[in-house]
Amino acid sequence: MKVRACMEQEIAPIMTEYWEKAKFPFHVIPKLGALRIVGGTIKGYGCPGLSITGSALATAEVARVDASCSTFILVHSSLAMLTIAFCGSEEQKQKYLPSLAQLKAVGCWALTEPDNGSDASALETTATKVEGGWILKGQKRWIGNSTFADLLVIFARNTATNQINGFIVKKDTPGLTATKIENKIGLRIVQNGDILLKNVFIADEDRLPGVDSFQDTNKILAVSRVMVAWQPIGISMGIYDMCHRYLKERKQFGAPLAAFQINQQKLVHMLGNVQAMILIGWRLCKLYESGKMTPGQASLGKSWITLKARETAAIGRELLGGNGILADFLVAKAFCDLEPIYTYEGTYDINSLITGREITGFASFKPAASSKRSRL
Amino acid sequence: MKVRACMEQEIAPIMTEYWEKAKFPFHVIPKLGALRIVGGTIKGYGCPGLSITGSALATAEVARVDASCSTFILVHSSLAMLTIAFCGSEEQKQKYLPSLAQLKAVGCWALTEPDNGSDASALETTATKVEGGWILKGQKRWIGNSTFADLLVIFARNTATNQINGFIVKKDTPGLTATKIENKIGLRIVQNGDILLKNVFIADEDRLPGVDSFQDTNKILAVSRVMVAWQPIGISMGIYDMCHRYLKERKQFGAPLAAFQINQQKLVHMLGNVQAMILIGWRLCKLYESGKMTPGQASLGKSWITLKARETAAIGRELLGGNGILADFLVAKAFCDLEPIYTYEGTYDINSLITGREITGFASFKPAASSKRSRL
Amino acid sequence: MKVRACMEQEIAPIMTEYWEKAKFPFHVIPKLGALRIVGGTIKGYGCPGLSITGSALATAEVARVDASCSTFILVHSSLAMLTIAFCGSEEQKQKYLPSLAQLKAVGCWALTEPDNGSDASALETTATKVEGGWILKGQKRWIGNSTFADLLVIFARNTATNQINGFIVKKDTPGLTATKIENKIGLRIVQNGDILLKNVFIADEDRLPGVDSFQDTNKILAVSRVMVAWQPIGISMGIYDMCHRYLKERKQFGAPLAAFQINQQKLVHMLGNVQAMILIGWRLCKLYESGKMTPGQASLGKSWITLKARETAAIGRELLGGNGILADFLVAKAFCDLEPIYTYEGTYDINSLITGREITGFASFKPAASSKRSRL
Amino acid sequence: MKVRACMEQEIAPIMTEYWEKAKFPFHVIPKLGALRIVGGTIKGYGCPGLSITGSALATAEVARVDASCSTFILVHSSLAMLTIAFCGSEEQKQKYLPSLAQLKAVGCWALTEPDNGSDASALETTATKVEGGWILKGQKRWIGNSTFADLLVIFARNTATNQINGFIVKKDTPGLTATKIENKIGLRIVQNGDILLKNVFIADEDRLPGVDSFQDTNKILAVSRVMVAWQPIGISMGIYDMCHRYLKERKQFGAPLAAFQINQQKLVHMLGNVQAMILIGWRLCKLYESGKMTPGQASLGKSWITLKARETAAIGRELLGGNGILADFLVAKAFCDLEPIYTYEGTYDINSLITGREITGFASFKPAASSKRSRL
Repeated sequence: MKVRACMEQEIAPIMTEYWEKAKFPFHVIPKLGALRIVGGTIKGYGCPGLSITGSALATAEVARVDASCSTFILVHSSLAMLTIAFCGSEEQKQKYLPSLAQLKAVGCWALTEPDNGSDASALETTATKVEGGWILKGQKRWIGNSTFADLLVIFARNTATNQINGFIVKKDTPGLTATKIENKIGLRIVQNGDILLKNVFIADEDRLPGVDSFQDTNKILAVSRVMVAWQPIGISMGIYDMCHRYLKERKQFGAPLAAFQINQQKLVHMLGNVQAMILIGWRLCKLYESGKMTPGQASLGKSWITLKARETAAIGRELLGGNGILADFLVAKAFCDLEPIYTYEGTYDINSLITGREITGFASFKPAASSKRSRL
Repeated sequence: MKVRACMEQEIAPIMTEYWEKAKFPFHVIPKLGALRIVGGTIKGYGCPGLSITGSALATAEVARVDASCSTFILVHSSLAMLTIAFCGSEEQKQKYLPSLAQLKAVGCWALTEPDNGSDASALETTATKVEGGWILKGQKRWIGNSTFADLLVIFARNTATNQINGFIVKKDTPGLTATKIENKIGLRIVQNGDILLKNVFIADEDRLPGVDSFQDTNKILAVSRVMVAWQPIGISMGIYDMCHRYLKERKQFGAPLAAFQINQQKLVHMLGNVQAMILIGWRLCKLYESGKMTPGQASLGKSWITLKARETAAIGRELLGGNGILADFLVAKAFCDLEPIYTYEGTYDINSLITGREITGFASFKPAASSKRSRL
Repeated sequence: MKVRACMEQEIAPIMTEYWEKAKFPFHVIPKLGALRIVGGTIKGYGCPGLSITGSALATAEVARVDASCSTFILVHSSLAMLTIAFCGSEEQKQKYLPSLAQLKAVGCWALTEPDNGSDASALETTATKVEGGWILKGQKRWIGNSTFADLLVIFARNTATNQINGFIVKKDTPGLTATKIENKIGLRIVQNGDILLKNVFIADEDRLPGVDSFQDTNKILAVSRVMVAWQPIGISMGIYDMCHRYLKERKQFGAPLAAFQINQQKLVHMLGNVQAMILIGWRLCKLYESGKMTPGQASLGKSWITLKARETAAIGRELLGGNGILADFLVAKAFCDLEPIYTYEGTYDINSLITGREITGFASFKPAASSKRSRL
Repeated sequence: MKVRACMEQEIAPIMTEYWEKAKFPFHVIPKLGALRIVGGTIKGYGCPGLSITGSALATAEVARVDASCSTFILVHSSLAMLTIAFCGSEEQKQKYLPSLAQLKAVGCWALTEPDNGSDASALETTATKVEGGWILKGQKRWIGNSTFADLLVIFARNTATNQINGFIVKKDTPGLTATKIENKIGLRIVQNGDILLKNVFIADEDRLPGVDSFQDTNKILAVSRVMVAWQPIGISMGIYDMCHRYLKERKQFGAPLAAFQINQQKLVHMLGNVQAMILIGWRLCKLYESGKMTPGQASLGKSWITLKARETAAIGRELLGGNGILADFLVAKAFCDLEPIYTYEGTYDINSLITGREITGFASFKPAASSKRSRL
């Protein structure tokens, strides 16, 4: 409720303007920090230590008003901070988490590369051991918050072991540049960057000791996929509320739009979807809390929820007619914001195949070695 | 579990044959009676007094194997028996419920008429008070179990009050005939009848004292819609299980069908749907148990669940290829059985509009008085 | 028009009964023969020599009333007869085509096997050269008309060349048995059989000289896929017509169903689909006539049209409410009949991948050699 | 081809930038003028006199690269110019059409009002006869090009006759203001305005003599809906081409994306949709050319095509993964541009109901007088 009040009073009135300009409203960072939701489920180090359900609901409430805000927090909290909490040394945790928890410093998380998206584990950025530290070389892409983050968690392939390692990289480290990706249609407030690492030296103390292989990212992604699943839930709740209000207020043909069969049926369809999404998301939290959530379940939750959210947003967009294409009325913005969410942290298709592997026992990510001949 | 075991061992092996012939397997009635699920939530009078959740799960387990069986029980238990339990006199309850609970007698429930389906409240069958009883005249249609039921609960319009009343009518009452409706594509085992009431005399003691208006049917339909919503859940669970098994066993192009991307994506989509349906159904039960379930919620549950079940069944039908058109493989039968369920106890559209009225405050069932001119 | 008149007057009145019983109405064979559409595009040998467009329209008109009839003709004419016309010797054509063209003899066409459906080219039935002829061994499945056909075109793998060859097999040949497949949910009138070939001897003169490899079936399938694509067009036309009529006649809530927003929107959606299907089918004919139709185009036509037909049938099924589950009202029967058509002559998925291969240059039929490990 | 070449070479490279900024690229107006497609089907007065098919193809080719450009031309040519050509006096045609045809002057067309969108015929702007002319009062909304148009065609209700009349209003007429509508998610280059008419005096010579009632706008909308229907066709063609190229170039998991089953199936689905849309659009042109096109057919064409285009764009958006949210890759921009097109010139729903009225004989635009009570 506190989150909802803050979002509606402080954040809602200004977001359309920033969204339109694709700018980040730096002055809201302290307000978001004051909500005490950053750090989510992390205990200690100045973090709120919420239950995963509590953290999920907070995510939804933020996303209900503005999905970009929610993504900003998610990248910072459920990816960057959580990696430090799960894979960092005690010193690293004490050093970094408290200021991150207050949003005095902002974090980001760099896994994806220009040529390795769905197949992230094939990443090509390298980390080579040198005297007193490591040299990072390569490129990262799509990294949210990276254009202004104070601290970047970056994954690279250890040239000695060929395994994935993780590093904490500070803003302004020589050789590090992050260029804003322009012309996005959704989450326009989130500043995604192309990162270039030209022989960036990282001291030994900034290597994350808990990341020895790609598998170590899985426990972070498990939490993060639950949080990401609650974004479309929040977005859909916001869309439903706006449509419900709009249909009762707007008249055509002498009657409120809410009195038309076609519109009622759409609204009811949306409501059914929203309820189902919430229940699926809630069950995911319960599974996680009981220690039983599998990767396939997290992937199923994320993919199924985004599928229904996309359907819900498309219906909502229609229901608002012409006003459905103006970001001012929330639904248009939400409709667009869903598209990157449908795709990030595993596209719908990749998450389907992760679940598919779990329930069938067969990995089907790769196509057969492409013989161009076939009998058919 | 007991229900599942009985269904799989006793019922599953014979249903395809009866379905194909559109015959009812009378010899299974004692086996269904022995499951102790008939009477569902009714307490006393030899009824099991299950929680609504328990009763719902039993419904799903029966439907998982055969939806016709489940409809047979539902008509008998959640419509006929429940009407007596809710609207009958103490004498009526003691007289009828015990044998119905043991399936020694079979009941049916007659509301729908040839010209009044979605708009059931407009029913035209009349009940006229005469010395010592009532005379019923009219027609009913689609009445499940009616061709062989021992006891028929029949609704008619009181010619004095113009309100709806309810009556218990016994098999072989003079003037009563029920003719089987042939050529159904789904729930072929269920015997639906066209009932003709030609001056049927009903004694005063067989009038249900608790039915004074159409509104009195609502508390029965509230339970019954929850039960009906669990049928497609059970059906979809059965379909998913069969598809999962089939895809792992059947090979094409040298690999199990489960190893193909397209097939995995379909299976995962089905699983997401099934989980969401179960959760929506479960929440409906919890709402009911807490006394908070509204008609709009029951209608939303029924309509949303049948929508997803229909989608799930269509995917399952595809996944089985050619064998997906044979009733032997369960999925084809389930695919067809869903169609009447999508339509009965309120079509998808009518249930949408019931929920739509509740959330908007506007009834949109009727179109505007049809002026054939318009400005557009 | 002549076809339409015959179908509506002679065939429509009896089909529900035969469909319900899953029997074939042998007495209509002469009536279908008298339409002079059997033999379709074949010139000479007593065949009508229609244009492919003419033949397609005739297919649609038959399917509009009864899809089983249309499949019966298609198997006989566009598969069995066309194979003889395209791949038979002059003697074979003169010997067999005239009586087939008059439907004095009925043909069938046996390619699919129990373990080789989508991957038909992997067929395992063998043909071994012996003195004066060939010995056929193996099994065929799903073969339409096979339980009573006078003449069976059967494909088998030449044990010497490992290539596919074709044979004309006569009814009652020793070692040949065909068992009816029961319990189908659609095209119930069509008699599909499981064929068993136990050392069936075929004389040299009954080998089809034009079939030297699997590729030789392609020119037959090219025509046949065009014809198959026109079945769902005809079916959908029939469904639309019935729904249009029904909505204008049936009243609820005091108004014709045609006056409700929701129903109008569904009907309009159906009409848009039907028009698009017809145009896609018509273009396919034009491409074929100009000699430019590729396999990918035929597959796209068949798969896209069946997809839209399935959507159209599901909407139609809804629009008829309870009567939508009775075969008597045509729509329910059509709804079921579409399912096997969605799957035969290449499932939706397989046809998609055939087109996909053509437009991308990559065959994706097979999954990668199944490694159960993966990095993700 | 000339249109395509110009669009790809001159327009494509700059549109992302203008789209992002929601600015209009005034310097491209002469290039668009030089294409000789403005004025479309109008004969004489310096107009190209294209066939409607030719004009439709030109619309599609422009929209294929940029839908905003296409909307700019459509508003100017198929709405403003066509109204003058159809409803203007000979003097008005000679005075205005030649410079409009060369795009030396830009036109716009103002029908929609803040409170009258789908129900445009209820418009409230008034025109009151005064000495030597008319006084216009009221508001218009969503008027494309209006912020900079030299000439505005404005519809208002004649206060004497209560019928709709049309007027030519010049830029900078006292009392006329047009304010840009900000924060659009699609067609961001198109400058839509809110128009305020404060006692705007229009000379008698600028009243369009051919507009005496709302019906007179129908012959313009008939052409215009055909043209609008070709926008989503062009957009979808552009999306398909980009996806086809992208899938062949981009690799993941060691293979081109085009080699994956899931991706092939999506691409094939898109291709089927595009072919069907083109054929429906083409048939609409042929119907128009033969003088047989009804309003219901135009509405069906527009609504069905936009429905399929929306589906196609959503699939395309997915296929491009992360790059599917960047306007640079065309698909994201096209995905957003479709939304206003789905809604303008009659929303999907309104066009459905227009066709619905035509095929059923019942107008269902208005809901029943809202009684909040109902029997159900």
